[in-house]
Amino acid sequence: MVKVNENFFRIEREYIFPVIEKKLDVIREKQPHLDLCNLGIGDISKPLSPLIAQSLTTAAEEMVKRPIGYGPATGYDFLKKAISSVEYPDQGFANHEIFISDGILSDAANLQELFAPEAKLGLPNPTYPAYLDANILAGRDRTGPNADNLSNVVFFSCNQANNFRPCPPSDPCQLIYLCSPNNPTGSALRRDELQNWITYAKQHRAVILFDAAYVDFISSPEVPKTIYELPGAKEVAIEMRSFSKSAGFTGLRCAYSIIPKELVINYQNREIPLCQLWRVRQNSKYNGTAYIVQRAAQTALSQEGRQQAKNQIQAYRRSASILIDGLLNLGFEASGGIDSPYVWWKIPTDTPCWEFFDLLLEKCRILSVPGIGFGSEGEGYIRLSGFADPATAEKAINRISNVSLSIYS
Amino acid sequence: MVKVNENFFRIEREYIFPVIEKKLDVIREKQPHLDLCNLGIGDISKPLSPLIAQSLTTAAEEMVKRPIGYGPATGYDFLKKAISSVEYPDQGFANHEIFISDGILSDAANLQELFAPEAKLGLPNPTYPAYLDANILAGRDRTGPNADNLSNVVFFSCNQANNFRPCPPSDPCQLIYLCSPNNPTGSALRRDELQNWITYAKQHRAVILFDAAYVDFISSPEVPKTIYELPGAKEVAIEMRSFSKSAGFTGLRCAYSIIPKELVINYQNREIPLCQLWRVRQNSKYNGTAYIVQRAAQTALSQEGRQQAKNQIQAYRRSASILIDGLLNLGFEASGGIDSPYVWWKIPTDTPCWEFFDLLLEKCRILSVPGIGFGSEGEGYIRLSGFADPATAEKAINRISNVSLSIYS
Repeated sequence: MVKVNENFFRIEREYIFPVIEKKLDVIREKQPHLDLCNLGIGDISKPLSPLIAQSLTTAAEEMVKRPIGYGPATGYDFLKKAISSVEYPDQGFANHEIFISDGILSDAANLQELFAPEAKLGLPNPTYPAYLDANILAGRDRTGPNADNLSNVVFFSCNQANNFRPCPPSDPCQLIYLCSPNNPTGSALRRDELQNWITYAKQHRAVILFDAAYVDFISSPEVPKTIYELPGAKEVAIEMRSFSKSAGFTGLRCAYSIIPKELVINYQNREIPLCQLWRVRQNSKYNGTAYIVQRAAQTALSQEGRQQAKNQIQAYRRSASILIDGLLNLGFEASGGIDSPYVWWKIPTDTPCWEFFDLLLEKCRILSVPGIGFGSEGEGYIRLSGFADPATAEKAINRISNVSLSIYS
Repeated sequence: MVKVNENFFRIEREYIFPVIEKKLDVIREKQPHLDLCNLGIGDISKPLSPLIAQSLTTAAEEMVKRPIGYGPATGYDFLKKAISSVEYPDQGFANHEIFISDGILSDAANLQELFAPEAKLGLPNPTYPAYLDANILAGRDRTGPNADNLSNVVFFSCNQANNFRPCPPSDPCQLIYLCSPNNPTGSALRRDELQNWITYAKQHRAVILFDAAYVDFISSPEVPKTIYELPGAKEVAIEMRSFSKSAGFTGLRCAYSIIPKELVINYQNREIPLCQLWRVRQNSKYNGTAYIVQRAAQTALSQEGRQQAKNQIQAYRRSASILIDGLLNLGFEASGGIDSPYVWWKIPTDTPCWEFFDLLLEKCRILSVPGIGFGSEGEGYIRLSGFADPATAEKAINRISNVSLSIYS
């Protein structure tokens, strides 16, 4: 008899975003004209720029003129070249170090396949839940379900004491996920803090999967724009980036990972470049990202494309500012919203996360994300997303200020 | 120290298609004006239909008018409904049984995650190499590299004795890949033969991953158009289909898998529907297929879209006919090319596959695929692809007939 992969039953909860989507669907069915402030799922609220749409059309017309079939599994050279020159002018990565994909979620979930199942996982708490789920499904931790501690995972606390910026742990771990600017806390690692992680990774011969989805939101000069600015990073880090947030591609699906040639693992006295293995993996399991989407991504990296993206990001940044400033002005504790679209709001009462989420929805008609969805240390927090119109952010702050204070006490 | 996934070193060879692409690049560099008959990689040779391109443009313009961000990880309902009514009018699958993806390769490589690592694999020999590679990478067989026999895989011979249509083995296996119409042999399982597989799967509580990529090439009435035509199939089979070959989507990337609600696995005395687990998997590891591509797929299923697809398939079928008839008329042994775009040509000499591949390339300027790339029983065969203009197929047959007979003796 075929047996099921038991690791599915080690994931303790349903993946958070579809749960929230479902709650939203229920509300919309009941009250179709509800004037909701959607500060929930970190999805774009601005439409695609006409420039990108035009490049999709042009690429589609090109496909009518000549057959454009399977592309390289790791992506087209034209896009890799644009990424290298625009995003990494100082590093100048070669094409074989750049891997185009359909999203950071896929890469973050799949890159763990490069490593032995026993590799000890290192994860921020709270963090994007897919990192843990993908590793549990792959059998990297078999402690759960319902375990208080996962035996093969080291968690790094992100809390008020460390300004939500995790420090390397005393315990050794070998497969480390870092997200900076961080989802969900909205904090970003400073240069010296990130350097500490690189030092830690070198000491422990660990690999850092560095999720830089929100890099375009960075404004603080002390926050590096790529981990590869820092000495030694190429030997320990894979950086994952996306066009989702920078160019509004959440519905188009395009991302990439950098695996520098310097990142090698010793196997039977040979030094194996991980970029070689990842190429094998992608050739075996992935047929590449749609041609027209890669052409659109190339356009997003053009001068005009970057300017339009910048304008969109500016609007989202303004919304994030309105949220963080508004909450602080109202006397709440909150952080983030500066180098990140996300604001991390400390629930002012002992109300559990999901209850406060429901209260916000009911009393303020604000859709948020409960912090607990990102891990145990997210309990007591709410994530608000700046991917909204500034007017929506203003409205949300007004509603938070106008609602009966009873929900906060 | 982080350790590498050793299973990467259990894959014995480089994935075949990039190897052939590289050989092609070398030749093109040397002889840029070489008049090559490309009967190699099973990729489309006709451009995208203007109707599909128009729907991409329309969808892109829609994305400019309103923000269309993340879609459901398992695909949009509009496409699922179209698939159910057009492709499965007799079965009427519900939306939660249909999973949109970016390609059969991804699904075939990822669906094995549903099952325990020890699940014994059943594979045709020869077959599409990705099935085995993905399972080896996942640790389902740790015998290799360089093993004569893989301890956790049962191979089903596809050879002249059984007309390249595999029969259920005497050994038990639980995770069975079948591809019909078959890649690479071009044969298609008859109704009674496929029913034998369903019976076998029921007896052994096995699951069949049924790759139906070439379903639109079926013309023989005794070949079922979907495995679900057959009684009992819903309880044992996942059917994978794609828009790649039917609507020329190899460059656009859209496919789907059907996981009927009747397909359940017992776990701790509960019956677990696999469609539920796959939804969890996709939500955790995949962010869905591009919106515009799903709209284009919907258009491909419209009446006009189906007519245009039919015309394209007709042309490819004509090419396949020219190839099989041509080879047989020249006195060669060959099969396939009737319910399939592929022709399986028996090498008329003792020349090893790769040598004959090189000879064909050199003497006839024909790009093919050596059968050995699909498994040990592919040695002695060459796969020719009908995804070419009929004129190209004619030219190839002429070249094969005109070349010095010495390469055949």
